[in-house]
Amino acid sequence: MTKSTEPQTATNSSPVTLINVVEIPHDQVDTFVEGWTERVKILSEKPGFVSATLHQALAGETRFQLVNVALWRDQQALSDATKDPNFSGSTRATSTKLDVSTNPGLYRVAADQVAAGSEG
Amino acid sequence: MTKSTEPQTATNSSPVTLINVVEIPHDQVDTFVEGWTERVKILSEKPGFVSATLHQALAGETRFQLVNVALWRDQQALSDATKDPNFSGSTRATSTKLDVSTNPGLYRVAADQVAAGSEG
Repeated sequence: MTKSTEPQTATNSSPVTLINVVEIPHDQVDTFVEGWTERVKILSEKPGFVSATLHQALAGETRFQLVNVALWRDQQALSDATKDPNFSGSTRATSTKLDVSTNPGLYRVAADQVAAGSEG
Repeated sequence: MTKSTEPQTATNSSPVTLINVVEIPHDQVDTFVEGWTERVKILSEKPGFVSATLHQALAGETRFQLVNVALWRDQQALSDATKDPNFSGSTRATSTKLDVSTNPGLYRVAADQVAAGSEG
């Protein structure tokens, strides 16, 4: 019996969304955003990067203070890009400095909806 | 001493992103998606709804199996829309039927990035 640790997906050449749900104390959010801004610049120069948006909770008591939603051409491009030592070094520096727990996962769009009438 | 339960925000008339991070067993995901699809149709007819995208994890072991990212014109529009009894009834039905824990929060964009060179 073998157990695959690869994400289950129909095809690895499909566009993929990386969502990272971040648990972090409210007073450390600004420092995380600074580091993220540095790291995303590195990634934005890699083949297959499409876009990334870091969302910050409006309320200090929201459980997940930050949520990153990033689009990539495919899983392989994302995997290759994050091997850059400048990226992984900055990620490690952030984890050491801050009381942060990250929950990255790969996602596909299950369903979506635009405003009624906006197609007409 | 009073404690505000309102989300902290500079202005309530700014666009807002609702992100709902969903904890649910992998084998209940499809049922949740069905119910979400019904509910989002109700919301899409409300003033101020812009768009909503339900993301589903590729891997069954991902901690957060579903993440909804929805855009609204402003907080008031969102607040008014979710008072519809058809919406809240469907939400209650889902929570009763499924072993689901939802974590909705209001967010603004802290930082974003598009692919290098895509602006040229």
